[in-house]
Amino acid sequence: MTETTIFTGFDLAERLKQNIKMRIDALGRQPRCNLFLDSRNAGASAYAQRLAGSAASVGIDMVMREYAGSAGELRRQLQEEADAVMTLFPMPDFIDRNEVAALIGAERDVDGQHPLNAGKLALGIVGYRAAATARACVLVMSEIMGSLKGLRVVVVGASPVVGRPLALMLLEKEATVTVCHVATVDLASHTREADVIISATGVAGLIRADHIREGAVLLDVGIVRTEKGLVGDIDLDSVQGKAAVVTHVPDGVGPVTTACLLENIVAAAEARS
Amino acid sequence: MTETTIFTGFDLAERLKQNIKMRIDALGRQPRCNLFLDSRNAGASAYAQRLAGSAASVGIDMVMREYAGSAGELRRQLQEEADAVMTLFPMPDFIDRNEVAALIGAERDVDGQHPLNAGKLALGIVGYRAAATARACVLVMSEIMGSLKGLRVVVVGASPVVGRPLALMLLEKEATVTVCHVATVDLASHTREADVIISATGVAGLIRADHIREGAVLLDVGIVRTEKGLVGDIDLDSVQGKAAVVTHVPDGVGPVTTACLLENIVAAAEARS
Repeated sequence: MTETTIFTGFDLAERLKQNIKMRIDALGRQPRCNLFLDSRNAGASAYAQRLAGSAASVGIDMVMREYAGSAGELRRQLQEEADAVMTLFPMPDFIDRNEVAALIGAERDVDGQHPLNAGKLALGIVGYRAAATARACVLVMSEIMGSLKGLRVVVVGASPVVGRPLALMLLEKEATVTVCHVATVDLASHTREADVIISATGVAGLIRADHIREGAVLLDVGIVRTEKGLVGDIDLDSVQGKAAVVTHVPDGVGPVTTACLLENIVAAAEARS
Repeated sequence: MTETTIFTGFDLAERLKQNIKMRIDALGRQPRCNLFLDSRNAGASAYAQRLAGSAASVGIDMVMREYAGSAGELRRQLQEEADAVMTLFPMPDFIDRNEVAALIGAERDVDGQHPLNAGKLALGIVGYRAAATARACVLVMSEIMGSLKGLRVVVVGASPVVGRPLALMLLEKEATVTVCHVATVDLASHTREADVIISATGVAGLIRADHIREGAVLLDVGIVRTEKGLVGDIDLDSVQGKAAVVTHVPDGVGPVTTACLLENIVAAAEARS
């Protein structure tokens, strides 16, 4: 029986924010980020409010903008003056995600979704703007385990926003990386061999005790709203007493992801100065 | 005891070349690729001759260019008129690989080494210029096995030229992918579980019978010159009778890689027309 630690990201996020504040002091002006959302969506609206609050606490001006009702107008909006631009889901279906990334541009991208930033990561070129959730996972793992060199890490979920950039960042850190996804046959046969499992699928309770080895470290990046409140990919009741560490949902990787977004906004402002 | 097939890539390469010829006919002009090399290097020189021969056979003008002796002059050379530009190793040490990629530009890149091309692959955006060896491996696997969906694939080697783009392409094909490398602990424990192993390390004879399961498919992308001639990452004598398929070195993945380079040159010419 292993005593399972529930990891919350507040301390790590706070340290990142202290560093961000110093960088903004050195910059000598308030960075501005335009944050696009569909405010009729309750989840997006609540998330935007939390983001704006965090941004304000470090001295970033987060300007809420409603998605325009036409592609032409949205194209114009996305090019409005700002150091950085963020677009929350759900996005209007009349514009393509890749066009949105192109209009924002690599310099103002805060989530590693411009091909130039994703490509620099893939090629091992320093100075890319990182996908925030993926970077947060690497920081949380480093906080819990120190060096990642030689660790067996299984990433569950192969999305361009989390799973793929995370796999590339883990290779940079010299971990051995397996990426599983919906087409994977016998997921548990992979995850049971892992020192670390990072699950980013949005399938509530996907990872249970029989998916893990004793003493594994589990990072939960899935967030699903259910009748019982927010739950993650990892079945906490099931893995308690077997996992060494499980991250809290939503207060494990979440606060660190927010700090990584703020870090990217500051980097965008610094690059223009 | 499994009967082991040695796979050569000539047939597949020939079919790709027939398609390339048709595209050049449709284009109505001869694509030009500037091929930079240090001709004092015997390996590079021999490779360039073979490439030029293949290019000529489909109607591509491969123009050999010697690396200039200074960074300024090389910068100028790399920007000379051509549909596509290729740079062979060894490259002069007075210029950075990333600067070379930037000077060539994403449109004239024939090996997926410009960040825009690598980034499109990472983000799942269609229309990127693919890393040729990685794409050749995917084509060879598809030729041997049909659909890759759900297969367990272990890639040995995490370089930006082969291992990383290959992992991303395999995820596109819905394979479950593990990337191993020099920091991996107990390589055999990973490779023994694999349906397919692709080794791209340049460590002669790295993969032996005890690294594989009965009936595995093995792709060898390592090429090392030894006293006994060219050898690959896979110890052929050792895996004979256990592997289902092993690719020949250098005539397995090699000819297909060449065809993929030619395909990329044609794509570059088409994009300008």
